[in-house]
Amino acid sequence: MLRTSYFRRGNPWSVLLRMTGVRCCQVSIQFSVNTANLPRPVRTLATIVLLFAAVAVRAADPLPSWRDTAPKKAILAFVEKVTREGAPEFLPAAERIAVFDNDGTLWCEQPMYVQVAFALDRLKALAPKHPEWRRRAPFKKLFEAGPDRLVAVSEPELLEIIKVTHAGMTTDEFAGIVRDWIATARHPRTGHLYTEMVYQPMLELLTYLRSQGFRTFIVSGGGVEFMRAWTSQVYGVPPDQVVGTTFKTRYEVRDGTPVIVRLPEIEFVDDKSGKPLGINKFIGTRPVMAFGNSDGDLQMLQWTTAGSGARFGLLVHHTDGVQEYAYDRQSAVGRLNVALDAAPKNGWTVVNMKDDWAKIFPYEP
Amino acid sequence: MLRTSYFRRGNPWSVLLRMTGVRCCQVSIQFSVNTANLPRPVRTLATIVLLFAAVAVRAADPLPSWRDTAPKKAILAFVEKVTREGAPEFLPAAERIAVFDNDGTLWCEQPMYVQVAFALDRLKALAPKHPEWRRRAPFKKLFEAGPDRLVAVSEPELLEIIKVTHAGMTTDEFAGIVRDWIATARHPRTGHLYTEMVYQPMLELLTYLRSQGFRTFIVSGGGVEFMRAWTSQVYGVPPDQVVGTTFKTRYEVRDGTPVIVRLPEIEFVDDKSGKPLGINKFIGTRPVMAFGNSDGDLQMLQWTTAGSGARFGLLVHHTDGVQEYAYDRQSAVGRLNVALDAAPKNGWTVVNMKDDWAKIFPYEP
Repeated sequence: MLRTSYFRRGNPWSVLLRMTGVRCCQVSIQFSVNTANLPRPVRTLATIVLLFAAVAVRAADPLPSWRDTAPKKAILAFVEKVTREGAPEFLPAAERIAVFDNDGTLWCEQPMYVQVAFALDRLKALAPKHPEWRRRAPFKKLFEAGPDRLVAVSEPELLEIIKVTHAGMTTDEFAGIVRDWIATARHPRTGHLYTEMVYQPMLELLTYLRSQGFRTFIVSGGGVEFMRAWTSQVYGVPPDQVVGTTFKTRYEVRDGTPVIVRLPEIEFVDDKSGKPLGINKFIGTRPVMAFGNSDGDLQMLQWTTAGSGARFGLLVHHTDGVQEYAYDRQSAVGRLNVALDAAPKNGWTVVNMKDDWAKIFPYEP
Repeated sequence: MLRTSYFRRGNPWSVLLRMTGVRCCQVSIQFSVNTANLPRPVRTLATIVLLFAAVAVRAADPLPSWRDTAPKKAILAFVEKVTREGAPEFLPAAERIAVFDNDGTLWCEQPMYVQVAFALDRLKALAPKHPEWRRRAPFKKLFEAGPDRLVAVSEPELLEIIKVTHAGMTTDEFAGIVRDWIATARHPRTGHLYTEMVYQPMLELLTYLRSQGFRTFIVSGGGVEFMRAWTSQVYGVPPDQVVGTTFKTRYEVRDGTPVIVRLPEIEFVDDKSGKPLGINKFIGTRPVMAFGNSDGDLQMLQWTTAGSGARFGLLVHHTDGVQEYAYDRQSAVGRLNVALDAAPKNGWTVVNMKDDWAKIFPYEP
């Protein structure tokens, strides 16, 4: 038996063919034909012909960069059981919510969080206007170390750096600063744009879940307005589906023009137990799938998978020291220790990047 | 020239026929035919036939409860100009964001905010367990006044009442309490359920905008978790599209089960200048349409309509003292004074409920 359903999400028409009892196969079609000047019956016929032609042309694996190992099988089996109408664990569209950590889950977080690289670049750009920084901690030690040297900073020092680089401007100005930076900033080891340092298997997963009626939210310790400037383009995740750390803000009318000013005070930290709180505050529905890679995601996975009915938790374990970085229990950035031990007890899937992913970055051949 | 586009939102298939240069006419189709056992070509044909049959059957005014006066014309003209492809002010789907105040804009806020009625009912329900309230302000004066008497309370007193009635339980427990209450609580004057005290013209507007690719967010001074318990059912607005006042929360694991506990402290007040801040924080994109009814919505309308490109602001003016309540500049609840004066200067549409709406509540004949 063949069941077909057609739906449109954004611009491309997607056609989903699902063969009952058989592994899902998903087809994406994008075509554009100007039929406006044709008579109506011809147009209708043309549309149908094109649709079936396209279906015949390309019927592909939705997760081609995932090897056929346990994690891929677990994802496909889970999605199949919650989207098959009549199945005991079927989920209506409103409950198909998946949450993704960003740093280390969707993109590379080594050798330092991308947002820290942004802050350091911003410091350098602002330094000429702030000669006093040359005499003041924590800026002094950064400048003395010279450009491109990693310097250990304490958490309060990092906070001080974040404040001077992330606050004081309007929200529109800040979005512009981030967009300008991310358009050219490059990863120190690979030389690729940071927006190319995203994990190809996770991009496929985001697209696949959305094609199955899921809404995909980012729930990250990163600054929400830092991420929103580029998540639509890079992940297909719109601003209102990005949950993150927030700054306090103030509304002002300047010469008749309303602006929102970013204040140098963090309002909400969306990390660790802040993640379930952020999910509750911004999304308001408990997700059914959660994807993370570090101890900062432990509570998000706990909260997601403790709900009733079918639940799915997954941790990305960074095991590929050649293509990416190998790190876990001892890493200063993205430490995966407590959550790694919690995974088997909770039935969470662990992705071994080296073995379970055939390809890590989109630019690989 | 006839252009057709088909898209699916939730369960019903919607077919939108838009005749260029002519007022939009919107058609909603809901049908269910089991064609699973038919051969594929027959199924395809059946679908097409049903589609065209349904289009022929019902082509209706999308806003039947709005009289053909200026506000309705302004709404339709605005939507037409931002959704017509190729038009100078065409907006891609991602930017079609409309925000709605709730109290007094989507449902009745007189003689008191519904959430205050909830708090008072909750106080009564909790009172037997709190004999100390009989001797303690502000509870003492409420109990002395007796049931169903309106008692003036100051803002700090109201806050105290809100805290004891809205905090101390888990988020799941609170959602259950609200759902139970709203299922039976009735408006003191009409005897209708509060969920029936919603404005029929605004329900039509929400549906119409969504059919045109808009996402409709609620941005209200009300508690976000109070609203989320019923907005999907009543307005078709899912929890993540509800922005409101939030309480501080705490994540706990109780006997192995994670819970989120509501703390007796307000975290964020989504009113007045809090509304643009809430929009920025939760939605992250400046809306293009904003709907309100009081001075609490002034900054939301300012922020929305100060953006570049086509913008739309609307205030509901409560002028019908027979079918609803007539109030504006002097009202303690939902005062409309500064915003009413600001409307003509800013080009905001003002709905005169008595004249511009043919029907106010869904239960009217």
